[in-house]
Parts: sequence; structure tokens; C-alpha cells
Amino acid sequence: MARKASLSGFPEWLPQERLVEQHVLDTLRRIFELHGFSSIETRAVETVEHLLRKGEIDKEVYAVSRLQADQASASESGLALHYDLTVPFARYVVENAGHLEFPFRRYQIQKCWRGERPQEGRAREFTQADIDVVGDGSLPFRFDIELALVIVEALGALPIPEFTLRVNNRKLAEGFYRGIGITDTAGVLRSIDKLEKIGAAKVGELLRSELGATEVQIAAALGLAGIRSGDTSFVAQVRALGVQHPLLEEGLDELAAVIAETSRRAPGRVVADLSIARGLDYYTGTVYETVLNGHESLGSICSGGRYDALASKGTRTFPGVGLSIGVTRIVSRILSQGFASVSRTVPTAVLVTLAEDGAWSGAQDVAAALRARGISAEVAVEAEKFGKQIRFADKRGIPFVWFTGADGEHEVKDIRSGSQQPADPLTWAPPAEDVRPLVTRSA
Amino acid sequence: MARKASLSGFPEWLPQERLVEQHVLDTLRRIFELHGFSSIETRAVETVEHLLRKGEIDKEVYAVSRLQADQASASESGLALHYDLTVPFARYVVENAGHLEFPFRRYQIQKCWRGERPQEGRAREFTQADIDVVGDGSLPFRFDIELALVIVEALGALPIPEFTLRVNNRKLAEGFYRGIGITDTAGVLRSIDKLEKIGAAKVGELLRSELGATEVQIAAALGLAGIRSGDTSFVAQVRALGVQHPLLEEGLDELAAVIAETSRRAPGRVVADLSIARGLDYYTGTVYETVLNGHESLGSICSGGRYDALASKGTRTFPGVGLSIGVTRIVSRILSQGFASVSRTVPTAVLVTLAEDGAWSGAQDVAAALRARGISAEVAVEAEKFGKQIRFADKRGIPFVWFTGADGEHEVKDIRSGSQQPADPLTWAPPAEDVRPLVTRSA
Repeated sequence: MARKASLSGFPEWLPQERLVEQHVLDTLRRIFELHGFSSIETRAVETVEHLLRKGEIDKEVYAVSRLQADQASASESGLALHYDLTVPFARYVVENAGHLEFPFRRYQIQKCWRGERPQEGRAREFTQADIDVVGDGSLPFRFDIELALVIVEALGALPIPEFTLRVNNRKLAEGFYRGIGITDTAGVLRSIDKLEKIGAAKVGELLRSELGATEVQIAAALGLAGIRSGDTSFVAQVRALGVQHPLLEEGLDELAAVIAETSRRAPGRVVADLSIARGLDYYTGTVYETVLNGHESLGSICSGGRYDALASKGTRTFPGVGLSIGVTRIVSRILSQGFASVSRTVPTAVLVTLAEDGAWSGAQDVAAALRARGISAEVAVEAEKFGKQIRFADKRGIPFVWFTGADGEHEVKDIRSGSQQPADPLTWAPPAEDVRPLVTRSA
Repeated sequence: MARKASLSGFPEWLPQERLVEQHVLDTLRRIFELHGFSSIETRAVETVEHLLRKGEIDKEVYAVSRLQADQASASESGLALHYDLTVPFARYVVENAGHLEFPFRRYQIQKCWRGERPQEGRAREFTQADIDVVGDGSLPFRFDIELALVIVEALGALPIPEFTLRVNNRKLAEGFYRGIGITDTAGVLRSIDKLEKIGAAKVGELLRSELGATEVQIAAALGLAGIRSGDTSFVAQVRALGVQHPLLEEGLDELAAVIAETSRRAPGRVVADLSIARGLDYYTGTVYETVLNGHESLGSICSGGRYDALASKGTRTFPGVGLSIGVTRIVSRILSQGFASVSRTVPTAVLVTLAEDGAWSGAQDVAAALRARGISAEVAVEAEKFGKQIRFADKRGIPFVWFTGADGEHEVKDIRSGSQQPADPLTWAPPAEDVRPLVTRSA
């Protein structure tokens, strides 16, 4: 686990580490499909133009160009690797709208690339697992609640510590700022976004110097950002600040609806946190981020929100809501902190040994009989001494070895206990927990 | 299926097409794991230097560079997207040798990129599924047989027509050419590789003009390339050409061993085809390629071979043998030819309807009870008329709709048959074939 990537920011896992990643991916897929999300993938490249129209991360994009093309063609070819899965998904929806049923619910699990300075929890190549629901023209607010519930279920099934899904609402924040007379609400959000990093005093200074906010406005903004609650009591706390604006009321209603339902169905997992801003400016309502309790410095492991105008085709718009799980960030932390245990490092359950070199084909028959019933088996490479073949299985982490005598009698030995029993390749099976490598939460 | 990719050479599937691709990927993974192959992934980028050291495809590589870096940095940064999974795997083995058990058997399923002119069966972004076994210092020849058998089993489990795995041996070819006095064996192989495309006469001309081969040599080379057999009778046919060389004998023995065992275990699937050359020059023994019978123009759907010197670390070498399945090529053909049928287009088995808007939370309880038993369920978006909710399920391809009466009584309706029955969310289950979308070979 202490290995360094040979290229900084591009992590590669050993086979036993990859088992943990596969467990995470399989779990997410299972939960997403149980909730009716369809899988799609989009190409790894987008036009630079499409990528830069959204968000503010042009510095971090990797351009792609034919190696043998002319110099300086990187900008001419105009292609770059996607940095998230939301922007490509928006394009996919617009291009395939005629072939999709709306509301369209999809999950998408793929690599993304950003040229950021690597550190733990921030790689240059990383896997995201996204769910979104997109409507045609409109999308009921209820999906803002449903997606939070799906994500809580999905994250809750992973071998990670307790987590907290923090929810806020852009309408609430924007209505509030307008209500106190600040018009550059994007500017306030950018400053408030830094609250956890730089603290209230410095955010206050930013609001003063960059936006010309008054002391009263600063106090109100920081007052709002200080509110958090695991139930709907935040509504009264906001009201106590005495600010009034129709958009604020709309946002309060929406956030209260999310918190009321999620706190009932997933107690302790979801809080209203009015400091959450989310950097990307395409969010228009609910915004989410998620921290691992006790690992807040890792950053958000799952973020997203409602976007009403990310995708459009002429006058037709496709509003959506979605969240994105940082799989690589989560898996890196699971591995570095030992949150998960793997029962063995290879898929193989049984090594079929060779009594003599000519027994290979018969040994393949035994292995084939086991595989036909879903039991992973491999045949020893050479007819070495049995002790050596058993040591090979042991080193690989294979729990069972199979022996076939000259008389055609079969026996199978559990290397861990040493117990050896007669066995029939057509009927014998290992205990359920030994059929495949199991990834479990460490005790 | 007639949609065109918005970026030529970068195919994207609709959700129902993606189900076919997922079925292919899941099937390959299952078979590979049954045979004890561990999953790994490598980063998408390699150094240009590492990529170009192998093979001859520099023109087709996509370079990667930070968009905001200096001009002309594409070459400076020195990174490019991998064009296959073998070359990255060789690097991975060398870097992680101290953490791996040898012989190391791994599978790897990832996207690759090549800047080739797109056409059916040849995309610029495509998924490969590779299996390889690599030894430390040496690797028993037996793996050349075993890997052919794994691949035949894997391809045989896919919804595709009959296929033929064609096998040849580089030692056989090289020994033969040396035996007839041709020393530039790589040159002969390059010409012979074109046999299927340009025919024997033109290959003869190439051998004459480019290598200065005599008529006798040309006749012998074309004679060898014309030999194919589904059993070991090719050995006698080669011997009848009267050429002698120790390397030829070694190659004949190896190829005969592969054909003898595979023709016994997978009759009709494997042939010795002495015209197979494979372009990449790192192969040193057995070489494989695979065609779909009746779809030969699609090109090889699975290729590979034995390489004795692809990976090395000082004087330590890691010989290997492996094959690579062209997943995107296969899936494109399955989709364009309708080889597979999908039972439905979404994972959802049950739509839980809403009698009135306030029933949403209770409907989520029903859905949660179904999901807890592995049944994919979603809740209707709004309490529209039941007819409209049923039509929505029907359009999405969801087979069952669930009703909860004001009295708390539950009923479930199979939309296809129209039959409606009382049901308990804690015990009801759909027939096994309706639990998830099934992908089957079309009749």
C-alpha cells in the first residue's frame, strides 16, 4: 500500500487493491440498478469548446491530439479529456433526446482527468460514479429528495466510516443575499465556499474587499453560513435573521422538504448546512456534498445538485439533478486506512494439482467440472512435489487444493485447516464464503 | 441503431445497446475469473517513449498535454493514450514485480485509443478485454494451450455466430524461412500478413521485389502459407515441403501440441493456419487470431500470442502469452446485425404507482421492500391517472406496476399479460426471467 505511482497523480492498484475497487464499483452498480438507473458511457473526449462553456476549470483540462499531426495542433484539433461526467452527459442527452424516455435516469461510472496538483484524495486520473435524472422541459422537485436517498443507500453499503450528506439550496442562498442587498450572489458564494478552509474572519474580509459588503451584510451572510441542523429547525434559525425575499422562501421550502424526508428515512445521515456553496455555477437549486466523518480534510466524497439549464436544444431544456461519487478518492482512503479486508487476493478457489505431467488434461477436466458450477479453478503448472504445489496455492492465497489419485479417486484439502476429504468434481462445493474473494468492512 | 456518432470513431451506445455491451463485459469477466485471472487496470496514459519502443504504430497515437501549458508541449510532456493493453501491462509487471506472484495471470478490460481512419469494426476509442499469463524468467509452454481454451470458452459464451481461432507459430515460420535461405524473416512475415487482403500473386511480387526472393523461395513460402487444418495433419503437409531447420521442428511441435489439445476439448473452434503472421513484432512463438465465420471482413475479433521479451528489468525477463478481445468491434457487430435480443431496456422490474400525491413516501417503502430482496423498483413521479402511469411504465419497458389501495391492500399487474394479483411487498417476486434485463442470442 506504500507503493508510489510511477506517474504522480495516476494511481494503479495491485490485484488485491483492485478487488476493493471492484467491490465498490459492483456495490454502486447494484444499488443504482435497484433504483432503476440505466448504465451509459460517454466517450472520453469532448470538444474543448463544450468543456469550457461550463465551469471554470480550463487550466486543468488535458488536450488530446494526434502525435504525428502538425505542431500546435492540440488547440486546432479541439479535443480534450472530460474532467467530469455531468458535462458529457448533458451533451449525450441533447444528442439522443429522440431515443430516450424522460424522466431519464442514468448512472455512469468512468474515468475522468484533471491536470491538478496531485495529493491524497486528488488524482489526475480518477473514477467517478454519477447518477442523474433529467426531464424534458421540467423535472419534479421530488427527484431532489429521491437522489439524496439513493446516494445515502449507496454510500452506506460501502466499507467506509459514517458519512454526512450536507445539503443546501442555491435559491435559499441567492434569495437571502438579494434580501440583504447583495446583487453579486455568485461572488458571495465563491467566498462562502472558502469558509471551511480560511475561516469566518477571512471570508468577512473577502466580502468587504471584493464585494464592498457592509458590516451588517457580512454579519448576515456569515450568520446564514453558520446554520446547520439535522432536522428542519434551520428554517426558524434563518427566519430569525429577519431577511425576506420570495426566492429565499422557495429555497427554504425545498430544503425543508429534502431534510424532512431524508432525516426520517436515513436518520443522522443528512444535514442542512447553509455554508455549502459548490464551486460550479450551473447549479440552480439543491446542492449536495458529503464528508466522511473524521476525514473532513479529504474533501467531499460525493457532490452534486439541481441544474435547470445545463442541457438545452433550441428552446427545449433538460433540467436535471444528480450526484457524483469520487470512487478513486474513496478507494484511496479505504486502502490507506485499512477500512476493508479482503478474504483472498485471487479469484481462484481451487488449485487442481498434478500427480504427474501427463495428468494435465484430466486435471483440466476436473477444473472444468468445478467451473461449470461457478467455482473458480486453475490447474497446477507443473507436476512438482505436492508440497511445492500446495505452497504455490498458499502463496497465491488459493484456499483449496485438489488431488486425483492414480485410481481416479479425488480428494480436496483446505489449506487453512489442513483437513482433507474425498470429493466429487461434479458435486463438491466450497463453503459459500469461499466461493469468491469477499471484501468486508474491517472490524 | 442507425444513429451516427457525433464524433466519428467515438461510438456511444443508447441504454439498451449498453445493456448488450454490459452483458458481453460481464460474461468475459465471469469466465476470466472462473479461470483464476485477477483484474487489474493501468492508467490511460503511458510515456510516448514506452509506447513507441514496441510495435510500429507511432502515427496512430494520441498525445495528451495540459491545455494551458506552453505551445508545443505535447511532445515535451511526453504522455500519450495507450493504444493497447499489452504494452501498459508489460510496464505494470516490471514496476510491481516485487508485489506479484508468478506465473501472474491477469485480465484487464479498458478503453484504448488509436487515431486510425474510422470504419465498422475500427473505432478511435474502443474497449479491449485482455488475458495474459506472465512468468518470472520462464513460462511453461502449456499456457499457450490453456489461454486458447479460456478464450474459446469466453467467446463461445457471447451472443455471436460461430468463430474460428486461427493459430500459427513464429518459430515454425521463421525456421521455415531460414530453412529456404531467407534471412529477413520479419520482412516475409510482413508480406505474408497481407495474403488475405491482396492475394498470393501480389504477395509473391512483394517477396520478389522487396526481399529478392527466388521463384523457389516464393513457391515454398506461399506453399507454407496455404496450409491450414483443424487437426495435426498440417505437420505432414509442412514436412512434405521438404524444408529442414531446428527452429521449424520446435515450432511444429508447439503448434501440434496446441492443436491436438484444443481440437479435442473444443472441436471445430481452432485451426492451424500457417498464413497467420500478426503485425506486432514482439511475438516469439504461438500467434492467434480469430474471425467470426461469415464475417471475415470485420477482421480479427481476438488476437495475441507468446512474447518472450516484452517485459524485462535488467537481466530479469518476464515472458508471457496473452490474447486481446476486441469488445467494441464485437459489440458493434452484434448491434448492427441484431445477433442479441434484450428482454427490456431498463433495469426496473416494478413501477410503484401513486394513488394520490401524498402516497409518495409510502410508495418508497414498498419500493424499498422490493429492493431489499434484489428487485429493481422505482416510484411514479406524480399521481397522474393510473392509465397514464401504466403507459409510462410500458414506454419505459417496465414489466410490472404496483398499486396500493386506500385500505393498504397491495396488487401487482403484469402489463404484458394484463393479469393482476394481490401481492405482499415483503414476499412477492417476479418470475426469475423478469428480475433483470436478459440479453440472449437472437433466434
